[in-house]
Amino acid sequence: MADHRGAALNFAHQNASLFLEKLNHFLSIPSVSTDPDRVKDMQSAANWVAHELTDMGFINATIFPTQKHPVVYAEKLDAGPDAPTVLIYGHYDVQPAEPLELWMTEPFQATRIGENLYARGASDMKGQIVASMSAVRSAISTGKLPVNLKYIVEGEEEIGSPNLAQFLKEHKDLLSCSFALNPDSGMIAADTPTIVYALRGLAYFELRVVGPSHDLHSGMYGGVVHNPAIVLADLLSGMHAANGRITLPGFYDQVKDLSEEERLALSRLPMDENYYKNITGAPKLWGEAGYTPNERVGARPTLDVNGLLSGFTGSGSKTVIPSWAMAKISMRLVPDQDPEAVHQQFIQYLTAHAPKSVTWELIVMAGGPASITDIHQPGTKALSLGLEAVWGKAPLFKREGGSIPVVTEMQNILGVDSVLTGFGLPDDNLHAPNEKLHLPTWYHGIDALIHFIYNLV
Amino acid sequence: MADHRGAALNFAHQNASLFLEKLNHFLSIPSVSTDPDRVKDMQSAANWVAHELTDMGFINATIFPTQKHPVVYAEKLDAGPDAPTVLIYGHYDVQPAEPLELWMTEPFQATRIGENLYARGASDMKGQIVASMSAVRSAISTGKLPVNLKYIVEGEEEIGSPNLAQFLKEHKDLLSCSFALNPDSGMIAADTPTIVYALRGLAYFELRVVGPSHDLHSGMYGGVVHNPAIVLADLLSGMHAANGRITLPGFYDQVKDLSEEERLALSRLPMDENYYKNITGAPKLWGEAGYTPNERVGARPTLDVNGLLSGFTGSGSKTVIPSWAMAKISMRLVPDQDPEAVHQQFIQYLTAHAPKSVTWELIVMAGGPASITDIHQPGTKALSLGLEAVWGKAPLFKREGGSIPVVTEMQNILGVDSVLTGFGLPDDNLHAPNEKLHLPTWYHGIDALIHFIYNLV
Repeated sequence: MADHRGAALNFAHQNASLFLEKLNHFLSIPSVSTDPDRVKDMQSAANWVAHELTDMGFINATIFPTQKHPVVYAEKLDAGPDAPTVLIYGHYDVQPAEPLELWMTEPFQATRIGENLYARGASDMKGQIVASMSAVRSAISTGKLPVNLKYIVEGEEEIGSPNLAQFLKEHKDLLSCSFALNPDSGMIAADTPTIVYALRGLAYFELRVVGPSHDLHSGMYGGVVHNPAIVLADLLSGMHAANGRITLPGFYDQVKDLSEEERLALSRLPMDENYYKNITGAPKLWGEAGYTPNERVGARPTLDVNGLLSGFTGSGSKTVIPSWAMAKISMRLVPDQDPEAVHQQFIQYLTAHAPKSVTWELIVMAGGPASITDIHQPGTKALSLGLEAVWGKAPLFKREGGSIPVVTEMQNILGVDSVLTGFGLPDDNLHAPNEKLHLPTWYHGIDALIHFIYNLV
Repeated sequence: MADHRGAALNFAHQNASLFLEKLNHFLSIPSVSTDPDRVKDMQSAANWVAHELTDMGFINATIFPTQKHPVVYAEKLDAGPDAPTVLIYGHYDVQPAEPLELWMTEPFQATRIGENLYARGASDMKGQIVASMSAVRSAISTGKLPVNLKYIVEGEEEIGSPNLAQFLKEHKDLLSCSFALNPDSGMIAADTPTIVYALRGLAYFELRVVGPSHDLHSGMYGGVVHNPAIVLADLLSGMHAANGRITLPGFYDQVKDLSEEERLALSRLPMDENYYKNITGAPKLWGEAGYTPNERVGARPTLDVNGLLSGFTGSGSKTVIPSWAMAKISMRLVPDQDPEAVHQQFIQYLTAHAPKSVTWELIVMAGGPASITDIHQPGTKALSLGLEAVWGKAPLFKREGGSIPVVTEMQNILGVDSVLTGFGLPDDNLHAPNEKLHLPTWYHGIDALIHFIYNLV
């Protein structure tokens, strides 16, 4: 097996440019899942994934339609029933590129500047998909795969994977595996390989507050009408207490306390106040009293306003009392919070606090629970050794603040844990303008995944 | 003089269609003063006004350039030095038509439906300008004007008249007059002619709150960064106390108490809670405790949010912590509040309440003080009798909630009072989609202004 491993690594090094070309092509497809105008591009991205897998020697590549964007599946099961089967997960959809004017380069034309490749999806997560494909291609091209592999690549991760659970339920047998590999998380730093063992959940809402039936002249009616933008501000403002805690009734009832052991582990992560200040550019950090930044991001629930819109927002002034005001509001959840319970808590809060001078509507946009995976399973060990072989040091184990609903769903529906890794960096500008991928780290990641494949047997 | 009056009224009735055609043409020019793309249309509107006045027999029609949009001036001084001189004010600019999708008709193509004429500016105030021009044309066409008339028509009222004070100062002699007629206010109802004797002032700001240097992934950084949209909500929410009073330090120090006599006069206005509820469509009224709706709108200062913008506002969800959040905030002022003092109070408030986790910027967009005019002057008497002659009842005297900075400036710079009237109605949708003008009321208004001209001597 040592020869195969070496040959695969050699193949990867010799084909570095090919892998980058493939990534560039994938990044040129504007597969924005939230945008109704991009349905054709979503199909193109799914086609590209299916075509690549077939080209690598996978069989049964299938593009399964869902109620929204299709799921791509393919398999290569040559290692036999006694070898482990790994289900590799990915999502071919990306976040919107807006605001376009803040990009230095074209978001859907990958541009290399120094060691970085700039494009929407470069890090989240087309780069990660192409990294795993490149590792697998290297192994297949130089010998027989020592493990069975299945790929599942969805197109709805950035909109909360609304149809994935149903797909997992309907194709439980097809997707049966020893464990899943999910390279949709990232690294703490370019010199610090990372394995994520816990993820936060998500509950995402749109709140609409309606006051007068139409926009009004603020001179003629200012003083008799409750301004819906001010009511919205009151409601948003009331959702945090002065100590940074969220005020929805019962919000913390299911939140697990952190053990001393876990607080100690989180305190070892190399991210301190200054790290977060530098990477975010915020003048001063903020958060729930009594917890460190790493605890607040990884192990405590949070609430953010993701968008605000009301009235006149152009240049200049318009003296209008807006008819309505809208906020996008999302909460990151921790074990064992339930998104639907949080939805009910939000409704309770609004019922108690919204004045009778307005009406309101709360729309659920996306949601998924948090998850923690077992760090002692063989897949984690194989990946840990693979990362160590390439970086020369053992990876750090981390609780991640983001949400990957598929991890929980694979646990609940398929009964398998996910090994979470990825080769993006904290300054990759995920979901923001100028998303990028650090190419030297990416190439290291391909090597580590080759080791991972051979470490499994 | 009775013959002249009757002939002028006859002329007006015979030329009703001509007057409407002229108004339709004026309304077809999209003279939106706040829109940088409409500079040519602003010039066209000014040209149209100058051309009409010249056509009516006015002389010295001049389009004076300013730093932004020009001022039109013309005069007809045939009545001699012993006759009074009336300065008729107007503004040829209009509010933006946005949101366009809420209009039933094209905003810049006047459309008659039943008794109403729909178009941006129909009521505010191109209709009022054409009403006064039609009255004056009727008087000139059928005899010699009994009074001297001057017109001043500006193009910046909807953006706070930033260059008008300077213009008044530079042309003090040219504009000398007995009093001004300003038909930029409206009527309480179609059967209730109205003279406005007080106006609120305006202080309009844009507040920008900046947190992180770029948009962040809410999973990766939710919990360490103070969300600028939430900080903005906190700041906006804190600007009103539970009793509806504004919390800026010292905000009420210069506000004059209402006399019992004035409260009694305001209580006689036919607008009650139900009136305001029906016309605004608000589920329930709201405002400062201890004051009636008419007092709150006419005689008490108010604060409104005119616009909100932050983060992701498209359809769907985007899990972003926005880098910044913006609010347009304006206050309606009463005598003797000073807009610059209010600006300083706002800065004091922000300095005291904005957390160090964000930075902020407060931009002054527009401002002007409130005003009260003398209701015993001859111009008011002449108008009052004119309205009574047409409607068969004496007008109501009202404090108006809106702001007309030019009234204060004419008082301060030219030393003259303004007689405030107008033939718009409360449901005209000023500054909103589907602005309209009630044509039977408008024609009544032309007749009343003819009476006004002859009542002056």
